[in-house]
Amino acid sequence: MNTSWDDWFAERADARDAAGLTRSLVPHGPDEPVLDLAGNDYLGLARHPRVREAAAEAARTWGAGAGASRLVTGTLAVHTDLERALTDFLGWPAALVTSTGYHANLSVVTALADRSALVVSDAHIHASLIDAARLSRAEIVVVPHNDVDAVRAALTGADGRRALVLAESVYSVLGDAAPLAALVAACAEHDALLVVDEAHGLGLRGPHGDGLVRELGLAGHPNVVVTATLSKALGAQGGAVLGSPALVDHLVNTARPFIFDTALAPSPAAAALEALRVLREQPDLATLVHRRVAELGRALGVDDLPAGAVLSVPMPTPQVAVAAQAACLAHGVRVGCFRPPSVPDGVSRLRITVGAGLGDADWAQAVDVITRVVKEHTG
Amino acid sequence: MNTSWDDWFAERADARDAAGLTRSLVPHGPDEPVLDLAGNDYLGLARHPRVREAAAEAARTWGAGAGASRLVTGTLAVHTDLERALTDFLGWPAALVTSTGYHANLSVVTALADRSALVVSDAHIHASLIDAARLSRAEIVVVPHNDVDAVRAALTGADGRRALVLAESVYSVLGDAAPLAALVAACAEHDALLVVDEAHGLGLRGPHGDGLVRELGLAGHPNVVVTATLSKALGAQGGAVLGSPALVDHLVNTARPFIFDTALAPSPAAAALEALRVLREQPDLATLVHRRVAELGRALGVDDLPAGAVLSVPMPTPQVAVAAQAACLAHGVRVGCFRPPSVPDGVSRLRITVGAGLGDADWAQAVDVITRVVKEHTG
Ligand SMILES: Cc1ncc(COP(=O)(O)O)c(C=O)c1O
Ligand SMILES: Cc1ncc(COP(=O)(O)O)c(C=O)c1O
Repeated sequence: MNTSWDDWFAERADARDAAGLTRSLVPHGPDEPVLDLAGNDYLGLARHPRVREAAAEAARTWGAGAGASRLVTGTLAVHTDLERALTDFLGWPAALVTSTGYHANLSVVTALADRSALVVSDAHIHASLIDAARLSRAEIVVVPHNDVDAVRAALTGADGRRALVLAESVYSVLGDAAPLAALVAACAEHDALLVVDEAHGLGLRGPHGDGLVRELGLAGHPNVVVTATLSKALGAQGGAVLGSPALVDHLVNTARPFIFDTALAPSPAAAALEALRVLREQPDLATLVHRRVAELGRALGVDDLPAGAVLSVPMPTPQVAVAAQAACLAHGVRVGCFRPPSVPDGVSRLRITVGAGLGDADWAQAVDVITRVVKEHTG
Repeated sequence: MNTSWDDWFAERADARDAAGLTRSLVPHGPDEPVLDLAGNDYLGLARHPRVREAAAEAARTWGAGAGASRLVTGTLAVHTDLERALTDFLGWPAALVTSTGYHANLSVVTALADRSALVVSDAHIHASLIDAARLSRAEIVVVPHNDVDAVRAALTGADGRRALVLAESVYSVLGDAAPLAALVAACAEHDALLVVDEAHGLGLRGPHGDGLVRELGLAGHPNVVVTATLSKALGAQGGAVLGSPALVDHLVNTARPFIFDTALAPSPAAAALEALRVLREQPDLATLVHRRVAELGRALGVDDLPAGAVLSVPMPTPQVAVAAQAACLAHGVRVGCFRPPSVPDGVSRLRITVGAGLGDADWAQAVDVITRVVKEHTG
């Protein structure tokens, strides 16, 4: 029996195929012989022996799952320990841990904005913040990327409404930083709150990897709220919101994507906690990433070095981007490939995430392969 | 420096306090001396030795996190193994694992419905499905709980638009079942898709705990899509969507809350996989839950036994509900307490989740405490 839904799926699939935009999932094993410069485990902490062991130990101690939502009975000491460690590390008075970084963004924006609010959104923000803004039903004004004047103009139009400004500290696709100090100043002038997603800043910016917000002296600022993921530099899973105790209390009582969701499992919570400890003891992990970013950037002739660990290399067409990615993989190096609609400016590119997890010889090998392939495909 | 946001937080907190509706997070340790009849670990699998060990082993083998989104490089063999096991267990040709059950619902509904679609939503559905429907921007028609005629009437008004109907197999707060066969028939008549959330049916309904959809012979039906959580009866974390290969392919290519989210961490994925194996070997786990539900229901004089493991006991006021919950806890038994706005009908109640994880003596003790406390508070 064929429903019209099957016809619709087939039509949509044909349209993707025709545009060369079909994607599929490719599983891999635990020890494949590939150098990974596509994932977001920037510091190699997902596979750090202490982090793995903390995850394993938590499963043995606490069980495999939290068993309930945070408010019902799923708040474990490992969650509150992690929240305390995050407040210390990032320099905020209060924190709330969520099951994914996506949930952190959904929770903050929907709890702070409703139909009567204004959300000013940078054109390059992540899907989770876009979805969060839509879900809030606030009026959304999208401003050009990193355009502080446009943000200020949009806030002037708030007309007494509560207003949020959404930005990432380090942008996930292009790898550039937001002008955070200027954005905070604009928000303070207009009594707006700046929501800064540190997904790609945490672990990489600041003297201990404590993020760009803290590096700029903005931690604890009354017009700032920070969100973060535990799934990238911290090598685990989950998300967090950092702010005032009043903000966290507000989220606990009103944020549906927090309230009605099972708490983060003990293993990733304990892993993120251990990753924070490792990070404190080894601030040189971030330094190594920056040195490697500079090295690869030079080799590729990239003019503007990225703020974090994402090197974004424009390709002439989506087809060439895919071919370059395949050529890297054929030489044992996995890099990311972003094509429309996943790129904010429509330009296809290789997305190379530089990590501290590779040994020096592997790193040299990866630089060699990527440099050759990029030259062949853009020269 | 006080912003107007601080004032707003304070106002909202005062309003909650005045209404007696303030909630806060209470952390607990791994081995507290309390019998838990509040969480959703219905079969005790979160703490099953084999499930814990599978979670621990996965952290050692794979690391603490998946390191990237599923499409980039985060699809591990443990995800595809779990997807295969879920298709076998639930009787569908294809499955997609997500990082939370919430993400599963957001992904399905936003990928299937847009502004041009109609979403017909049961009045009692879970927050994740409500948020999913809102995020889709479809027209939403809310129909009275379990009212098939109202669903049919709403579908008649679809006027050629694609239409989804949203239901839970077993409802999370009241514990009653949906009239699934009649809903599927209504959907088939109107070429609509029924999205059935098996969050509270999986592990409890069907001969092997394989869910209410399969129990009713509806697995694989062309007008049905199933979502599930890995965080309740399977004792882990995460979610899943079950349907046709074309549906899963459509989700992989278009569902933003799937595409732009880090893959489920290896530990909970491996734990859910092991939980499915335990469930296959021990179908008597679900039988034990049903026997206990009947026993406690009888002791409390509940007329309609629930379809799953949630016994919902109405209380005269929110204050009495809170007092009864506290009295149970004082006697070492934790039960849930649902008050507005978390109850679909405005009636405060104790929510008692009956589990197979308690030993017989502990179970007898819990029945005794709950029965006495409920009598004292409603008599
Ligand atoms: C900027 C940004 N924010 C939020 C998220 C979502 O975090 P998570 O994957 O932990 O859900 C991501 C990536 O996945 C991201 O890149
Ligand atoms: C009916 C229902 N659907 C979905 C969810 C969300 O699942 P998860 O907690 O795995 O995100 C829940 C509970 O949390 C639920 O009760």
